[in-house]
Amino acid sequence: MTIPADGIAPGDDTSGLASVTADFIFGTLATDDQRLNNLRDRARGLHHDGHITPRDPAPGQAVEVHVTVGVDTSIGALAVAWTTNGSEPDETAPSSPLFPVETSWDMLLWGYVTRWTGELPAQPGSTLVRYRFVAESPNGELITVDPDPFTGNPARFAYAVDDERVPEWVREAVIYHIFVDRFAPDPGEDWQHTTSLDGFYGGTLRGITAHLPYLVDLGVTCLWLSPVFPSPSHHGYDATDYFAIEPRLGTENDLRDLIAEAHDHGLRVLLDFVANHASNEHPIFTHARDHPASPEREWFTFLDGGTYRSFFGVGTMPQINTDHPAARDYLLDAARYWLDAGVDGFRLDYANGPSHAFWAAFRQETRAANPDSLTIGEVVESAELKASYLGRLDGTLDFLLLQQLRAFFAFDLIDPAAFHRFLERHLAYFPADFTLPSFLDNHDMNRFLWVVGGDKRRLKLAALLQFSLPHSPVIYYGTEVGLSQRHDLEYPDGSRRMEESRLPMRWGADQDKDLHTFYRRLIALRRAHPTIWQAARRPLILDESGLYVVEIGDAAILALNRSDAEVSTRVPTGLALALPTDPADVRDGTSLVLPPSTGAVLMAPGLGR
Amino acid sequence: MTIPADGIAPGDDTSGLASVTADFIFGTLATDDQRLNNLRDRARGLHHDGHITPRDPAPGQAVEVHVTVGVDTSIGALAVAWTTNGSEPDETAPSSPLFPVETSWDMLLWGYVTRWTGELPAQPGSTLVRYRFVAESPNGELITVDPDPFTGNPARFAYAVDDERVPEWVREAVIYHIFVDRFAPDPGEDWQHTTSLDGFYGGTLRGITAHLPYLVDLGVTCLWLSPVFPSPSHHGYDATDYFAIEPRLGTENDLRDLIAEAHDHGLRVLLDFVANHASNEHPIFTHARDHPASPEREWFTFLDGGTYRSFFGVGTMPQINTDHPAARDYLLDAARYWLDAGVDGFRLDYANGPSHAFWAAFRQETRAANPDSLTIGEVVESAELKASYLGRLDGTLDFLLLQQLRAFFAFDLIDPAAFHRFLERHLAYFPADFTLPSFLDNHDMNRFLWVVGGDKRRLKLAALLQFSLPHSPVIYYGTEVGLSQRHDLEYPDGSRRMEESRLPMRWGADQDKDLHTFYRRLIALRRAHPTIWQAARRPLILDESGLYVVEIGDAAILALNRSDAEVSTRVPTGLALALPTDPADVRDGTSLVLPPSTGAVLMAPGLGR
Repeated sequence: MTIPADGIAPGDDTSGLASVTADFIFGTLATDDQRLNNLRDRARGLHHDGHITPRDPAPGQAVEVHVTVGVDTSIGALAVAWTTNGSEPDETAPSSPLFPVETSWDMLLWGYVTRWTGELPAQPGSTLVRYRFVAESPNGELITVDPDPFTGNPARFAYAVDDERVPEWVREAVIYHIFVDRFAPDPGEDWQHTTSLDGFYGGTLRGITAHLPYLVDLGVTCLWLSPVFPSPSHHGYDATDYFAIEPRLGTENDLRDLIAEAHDHGLRVLLDFVANHASNEHPIFTHARDHPASPEREWFTFLDGGTYRSFFGVGTMPQINTDHPAARDYLLDAARYWLDAGVDGFRLDYANGPSHAFWAAFRQETRAANPDSLTIGEVVESAELKASYLGRLDGTLDFLLLQQLRAFFAFDLIDPAAFHRFLERHLAYFPADFTLPSFLDNHDMNRFLWVVGGDKRRLKLAALLQFSLPHSPVIYYGTEVGLSQRHDLEYPDGSRRMEESRLPMRWGADQDKDLHTFYRRLIALRRAHPTIWQAARRPLILDESGLYVVEIGDAAILALNRSDAEVSTRVPTGLALALPTDPADVRDGTSLVLPPSTGAVLMAPGLGR
Repeated sequence: MTIPADGIAPGDDTSGLASVTADFIFGTLATDDQRLNNLRDRARGLHHDGHITPRDPAPGQAVEVHVTVGVDTSIGALAVAWTTNGSEPDETAPSSPLFPVETSWDMLLWGYVTRWTGELPAQPGSTLVRYRFVAESPNGELITVDPDPFTGNPARFAYAVDDERVPEWVREAVIYHIFVDRFAPDPGEDWQHTTSLDGFYGGTLRGITAHLPYLVDLGVTCLWLSPVFPSPSHHGYDATDYFAIEPRLGTENDLRDLIAEAHDHGLRVLLDFVANHASNEHPIFTHARDHPASPEREWFTFLDGGTYRSFFGVGTMPQINTDHPAARDYLLDAARYWLDAGVDGFRLDYANGPSHAFWAAFRQETRAANPDSLTIGEVVESAELKASYLGRLDGTLDFLLLQQLRAFFAFDLIDPAAFHRFLERHLAYFPADFTLPSFLDNHDMNRFLWVVGGDKRRLKLAALLQFSLPHSPVIYYGTEVGLSQRHDLEYPDGSRRMEESRLPMRWGADQDKDLHTFYRRLIALRRAHPTIWQAARRPLILDESGLYVVEIGDAAILALNRSDAEVSTRVPTGLALALPTDPADVRDGTSLVLPPSTGAVLMAPGLGR
């Protein structure tokens, strides 16, 4: 994603941003033009985008539904029809009118946009409210709200009425992200010899189970496994079956064993779940493709000329109509099946592909199967879109923070003031009951250690900050032991190989012990002293040179020196070094001396949980 | 102003828009790029822009003041200080803190913007509250809210606490816009011979007085005179004295006579008042220019290199610091002086130049001098900016409607549905106590009759619609008798001559009697039947071919046929032609037949005031 200069540090030279650009896989808002077009598109036609008030209706609350009527669109009639029995509302469903409540001036289209609002009645708990809009032009022609850009079909809408909250365990979790094929082979086995980065390296579920002691020792509390269902690819994001385990990775019993042993050690296990698309070798897809008259045809979107809708045009990943009842049920059944097998929740791939309605049902069903289960979406778009998943997902992976963490700690594109400003507003923007796991890198971008040219000090600095934040930190396998890359994922010829960031885990003597020790202490500090990520933060120093000092609560300090010079800064007496990223010193009990690219947490010695 | 294709009729070919572009003088939002930059600018730094809640505080109401803190700006402290004795608030003034109340995601800058809000206490009526913000960065550096783009100086803010409303007479007014040098020479005199369009043609105040019978017969109720103060130019928008009359135009007694006779006939008189800038020959300016140490230096903004701030960089029009107390008092004294001489109010040139604070004081002072006086601003920008003058001005000239009227009736760029949509939202957007006089052309653009190639039918159609709308219509002198142009104001070499739209008035046999008769009837209809512009409107036909039929109240119909074909349309029985633009027919009492480019108002015969 292109980070615009003015979004990061107004006036900065933009030439350095290319390196950030190359690091991300982003969605439909990657460029200035895309963002501008997004704003313009939202000021045309009829848009709902799942916009309801309150966002997360509780039992007994009436719900306002909002539709934006664009500069180019006239309304003759606009109503909302709903059901509470799970069926799609048809002509017999009760309906309520919407009314124009607010007109605003759209600067970009140089015209007026009007917001219409209607009300759906309060419902008891555990109700799934499905609704659709009936909109007509003044001449009585039907107009579609949020038409599908490929088919023009109306979007489906739903919300769940409940008292569900983010599971308590998530708030304290430290998540470890495992790319299964690349983590560990079966005990006693070696990596497979493969000449291709997208070949099979031989990581297995049994390999993970065998390394549970390593993970327990590291201190993480939750595993997120990359997709484990049968799939022709090394990454598994194109499943051919949602009810089985890829034989290369092991068996269903292997997974059950892994879960059981993990649970015995107090670790939770999340599966990576891809509702948006399946493999083009999935038997339901091949059947649908070969039998145009079959009911399964509706599970997908076949277009003229024999093509079909797929994930960003990748033909091996046909997109699933997650609002089609049979397809939805298949996916919900699969999710329930694995919860019954003991998993603790899901990381949901490309969660902004399926509709808000799908996720409302998904969370309702998975919570019913396991009241403590988690739903975390991958949503790589604007803060506004992320926040729209409140009540539909427990949270989304924090790509916006990722962007700023890398801009600050890896690319020196923003100064401490800009970074702190972002953090403060970012945390204020999202409601309390929404979790935003943080991360420094993942399987779709250059590893952090690679982009800082192997400078471990920068990685430690960024991790120290990451672990001091309120939301759960995620560690991408290997980051804790110095795993990096052979090449940049952007090749000189302009092609990209995400697989560069998926090299096999390092074990034994290949591990960077210094980094590993730092991560162990970092995790231990976070787990032992929740005050570090729970207490209010107050900036003490936001220096352009790169010194960033924050007071956390009233008995801890986080000090980061991103500069190339040693700095010293006064700290309150009575605080001691709890965790420096590298050897640091508090002279005379009041002066913290930080070498270049180092940082530290200081705490009152008696501070504890 | 460039009308963007997507703001007018998405999908339309934009090539035809060039002709609209050439017709307007617009402000700082003329192009897509300017509008985009405006949005980006507003998401950076600290902005208040006169934003208070309520917009127009009444006695006893507390007032919220809002500041937008941009993506790029950190706040250490933010407060508002105020006075109620007319002085600028200094360090001794009472102050209140602002607090962050809402964070939103800015798509264009890809970051967060925060709105801070504070409260000023309720005040009794007739209080002018002056206020300023004190903002500091986290390091204690002062930050300016709404800095002047030239000087960086802080903007001044004020609001008046009162129960003032738009004068009742304005709602019923029909305004006639006279360009004094071009309307009528002294009785018995002929036009002067001038070889230059920007020379003097010899129109005078006595000439206007002599033609009052013509204006009374036409039926208008209010005259707006172009600037009459001493000035070196033919247009007068660069005064050398605000307390005298330009000798070419007459004497102060001539003006008093004109006002007295106009009042005798029930006509009001508005002066064109230019607070934003004076002539570079104004003695206060020349003194300030020649005496850098003089107090008058502060009336203007002198820049390095001997230049000074001026109206769009036109050196003959140095910009006045309307917030400088002495300059402000000079302007307020002048306004009071002319109100004392009998004028009924002011058309305020380039009203978005002076601050909101200036206008708050201006309206307060002019209302004190004449409780029935009017303040109408020229604000050629967004609807949002126009609406921000609520409580500071009685209204603004309706350039947005102008744009749509010309797009619909002259350029065929939008269809009836788009035009009606605009109208409906436009009228809903502005508060009831804000007047938006409508017009088809003025002295800064091609005349309407010119842009339609002399097709009177289109002019009549547009005027019929204009006179059916709630706000006061303005007629630019000569439009009612077929005055047009010699050339387009955009010359083939790309230069522009606004003077092409300021040719001398046509009198006697030069007048188009048919058009004149139509305008007389149109004005009479509006004055006799307020229901036509007061009653609720309901669209009956919005046909792509150009047929536009609206029901007004329950006993009138407005039908417009913009197409090149004769159309017939059913109308309720019992309605009769009240005013067709050209001969039309109601067959069998139910079928209105409209020739190409004609329209009509139909009313129940007994319908009256």
